[in-house]
Amino acid sequence: MADKKLVEAITSMEEDFARWYTDVVMKAELIDYTTVKGCMVIRPAGYAIWELIQKDLDRRFKETGVQNVYLPMFIPESLLNKEKDHVEGFAPEVAWVTHGGLEPLQERLCVRPTSETLFCDYYKNVVQSYRDLPQVCNQWCSVVRWEKETRPFLRSREFLWQEGHTAHATAEEAEERTLQMLDVYSDFLEETLAIPAIKGRKTDKEKFAGAVATYTVEALMHDGKALQSGTSHNFGDGFARAFGVQYTDRDNTLKYVHQTSWGMTTRLIGAVIMVHGDDSGLKLPPAVAPVQVMIIPVQQKKEGVLDKAYEMRDRIVRASEGSVRVKVDDTDKSPGWKFSEQEMRGIPVRIEIGPKDMEAGKCVIVRRDTGEKIEIPDSELESRVPEVLKSIQKDMLEAARAHRDAHTYSAADMDEFRKVFLEKAGFVKAMWCGDQACEDKIKEELSVTSRCMPFEQEQISDKCVCCGRPAKHMVYWGRAY
Amino acid sequence: MADKKLVEAITSMEEDFARWYTDVVMKAELIDYTTVKGCMVIRPAGYAIWELIQKDLDRRFKETGVQNVYLPMFIPESLLNKEKDHVEGFAPEVAWVTHGGLEPLQERLCVRPTSETLFCDYYKNVVQSYRDLPQVCNQWCSVVRWEKETRPFLRSREFLWQEGHTAHATAEEAEERTLQMLDVYSDFLEETLAIPAIKGRKTDKEKFAGAVATYTVEALMHDGKALQSGTSHNFGDGFARAFGVQYTDRDNTLKYVHQTSWGMTTRLIGAVIMVHGDDSGLKLPPAVAPVQVMIIPVQQKKEGVLDKAYEMRDRIVRASEGSVRVKVDDTDKSPGWKFSEQEMRGIPVRIEIGPKDMEAGKCVIVRRDTGEKIEIPDSELESRVPEVLKSIQKDMLEAARAHRDAHTYSAADMDEFRKVFLEKAGFVKAMWCGDQACEDKIKEELSVTSRCMPFEQEQISDKCVCCGRPAKHMVYWGRAY
Repeated sequence: MADKKLVEAITSMEEDFARWYTDVVMKAELIDYTTVKGCMVIRPAGYAIWELIQKDLDRRFKETGVQNVYLPMFIPESLLNKEKDHVEGFAPEVAWVTHGGLEPLQERLCVRPTSETLFCDYYKNVVQSYRDLPQVCNQWCSVVRWEKETRPFLRSREFLWQEGHTAHATAEEAEERTLQMLDVYSDFLEETLAIPAIKGRKTDKEKFAGAVATYTVEALMHDGKALQSGTSHNFGDGFARAFGVQYTDRDNTLKYVHQTSWGMTTRLIGAVIMVHGDDSGLKLPPAVAPVQVMIIPVQQKKEGVLDKAYEMRDRIVRASEGSVRVKVDDTDKSPGWKFSEQEMRGIPVRIEIGPKDMEAGKCVIVRRDTGEKIEIPDSELESRVPEVLKSIQKDMLEAARAHRDAHTYSAADMDEFRKVFLEKAGFVKAMWCGDQACEDKIKEELSVTSRCMPFEQEQISDKCVCCGRPAKHMVYWGRAY
Repeated sequence: MADKKLVEAITSMEEDFARWYTDVVMKAELIDYTTVKGCMVIRPAGYAIWELIQKDLDRRFKETGVQNVYLPMFIPESLLNKEKDHVEGFAPEVAWVTHGGLEPLQERLCVRPTSETLFCDYYKNVVQSYRDLPQVCNQWCSVVRWEKETRPFLRSREFLWQEGHTAHATAEEAEERTLQMLDVYSDFLEETLAIPAIKGRKTDKEKFAGAVATYTVEALMHDGKALQSGTSHNFGDGFARAFGVQYTDRDNTLKYVHQTSWGMTTRLIGAVIMVHGDDSGLKLPPAVAPVQVMIIPVQQKKEGVLDKAYEMRDRIVRASEGSVRVKVDDTDKSPGWKFSEQEMRGIPVRIEIGPKDMEAGKCVIVRRDTGEKIEIPDSELESRVPEVLKSIQKDMLEAARAHRDAHTYSAADMDEFRKVFLEKAGFVKAMWCGDQACEDKIKEELSVTSRCMPFEQEQISDKCVCCGRPAKHMVYWGRAY
């Protein structure tokens, strides 16, 4: 049995989802608050998840030809001001550096909220001819947006992310790259984070400042709210024209490049918590669990128990060639306390081993996702552990998909639409005329936004859910983080 | 023969070392200048070196129990001000954020120049009892120091680094960790960057602002100037007292923790360039070469040549299980141009393959470090390439050690001392009385600083080289970057 003390310390999801979330990030030791308002410390248990996310995403990027770079964290005000829509979108929420050392700066610098302007400035220098294209770069860095209300991982004044920025010879190639990266994001969410995603296009109201088109992967959290989990933007040649990024084509004429950008952030850790977690704490998909298996000795002071635990660890490491991340909890806490901690931290598998198990030549595997206990012969340890991890990864995706499908509704008119958002929570599929006035009206009345126009369109009705005029798109609507 | 055009574009080392350096970083496409004064773009070829450095160092850190974290990039002015020596050392060179969005901030924030103050603030929260110790954390991030004169990699207003910060129960444990990390740095420099390092302690004049003791690894560049390549600081309990970082010990009394910090930066890339490079460009040690082997087809339009090149690449990848990083240069440039580019970029090995080689069942391996050409039978390709890479790694360290030893002098009095720095360039071993006045005098006259008091002390004479009073330490002196 898991220890009650640790468990009672967290609020239940039903009672107060927001408090449950905060309790989990604190009790699982993912973050700590700081005296720097709106910023957080990402603690070892949290950062190790980010490292696994980075490693996996970075591999996927590089398989598509992405190269990593690093650009300055500062943007001179005059550079930020070059693209009109972009500066309007970001200027209200940037932090400004006005002094360097003891001297006031001649021109103030903002701390990057995103780096389109810097990448344009860079590509302008290094792109001369069609031979220099495409440029397919990415950087892992932190960015700053001066948010008024902040929440760990979901919204903070500084966060970590990757931002990909590409430049292409043609509009077609840019659109292709934009969609390719959206697929990378969607595959990553499903295969690695066990989060099913809706792929689609943002409405003009919701698109990125300066983009021609923004595509998104939207996920549904356990409380029925939506989380934008990654976006991919096609800029056309708008930035290129504003910054003068041109190349000499094969026909010896000067042309503007076509650009894209795409990003995922540490808010993905928030998504993992809110999609998979439960009242015992975090539940990590094995692919991003820094510790996948915790071996917990029972009656560890009895002779041979600890040694047996270490032996089991070593066998798992050896047989998996180090690919299974396994530890022994040999602290002097009680087994019940250790079970609670392992559950709170979301470690996918625990193995219980005590004198009785040893006598019987067996051990007990407990799945964090389902709570299922599996008694296995000691001799099958090496083969069963990777199998169980694989099942957990697969089953967590299925469970998340089932939850999402159960909380996805259709609405043909405003009555149905309202009913869902007043009584339930989830995605609502409903038709839209394409007019921003309807989006504004829906947002004002219900605090609901258009999440995306999904690639997989359905015909819920032939009229806009809001104004009744002929419908142009099916839209996923939701309350969003 | 390498193509002349590319080679002639760089200044020779003898003529002007500083220009040679700048030419190499630009021609090898490691960096680009930006409109952000004093900051640089680290381009794909440069960043890929940094990624290999990170991966290797990070593995070494984790083997000693280090955990990665991420702390905010901003430090409130009041927090920076808490430790007197520290703020005096850093305040003149920090960048200040004074506005968030459209509002002035109530308290200005500096962009971290280093994070001791933030780690103290964090440890103060999470350390309660001896059970919470040691804390052994590290972060990979960028920092900002408002330098007046900047040079790519060596000194820039923003640079990338890792900063380790630890907290311990006892002074002994802190000192042990400080020295352990210095050993990690020294091993890394020798084994990975092929750079021999002098390990020692900084004088009080040269130590870190707020440290009790600073240890350093000092390397000698090709021009005879010294480069501080990594430092490890023991803070004693000074920061803990200033920030109130206390724990309850086993005996139930409150005690201050003892802290350390240690860092290495992107200036290591500058070290690699200046230790190993030559008039043909960069020379990368195989361990940090993003591409280790470039296969260059000769007469690639002749039937079968390109296919042969790809086949060779695939065989090397397969036999090394992907551990050898190999590419084919199949662009439409001339072979001579490709040779020049491979040399400029410092790729350790090139393989030349053409119709005649194919007929004879052989290929030619050319070592970037020595220029040696090795003709090998095609059948030995898989076994010889890794061998050659291993030899290059080893021989580059030996060559750098030989250069350093040949440029390390001893001086018993000021005449000898002056003579070296007026006529030659290198490290000078000389005795010192321990009085800062002598350091100041030497610096003023010759622009030479004490690099370190090496762990391996020798008795050059029994008098201080400067004042003639009894000597306390042998010191390595040098002109430094």
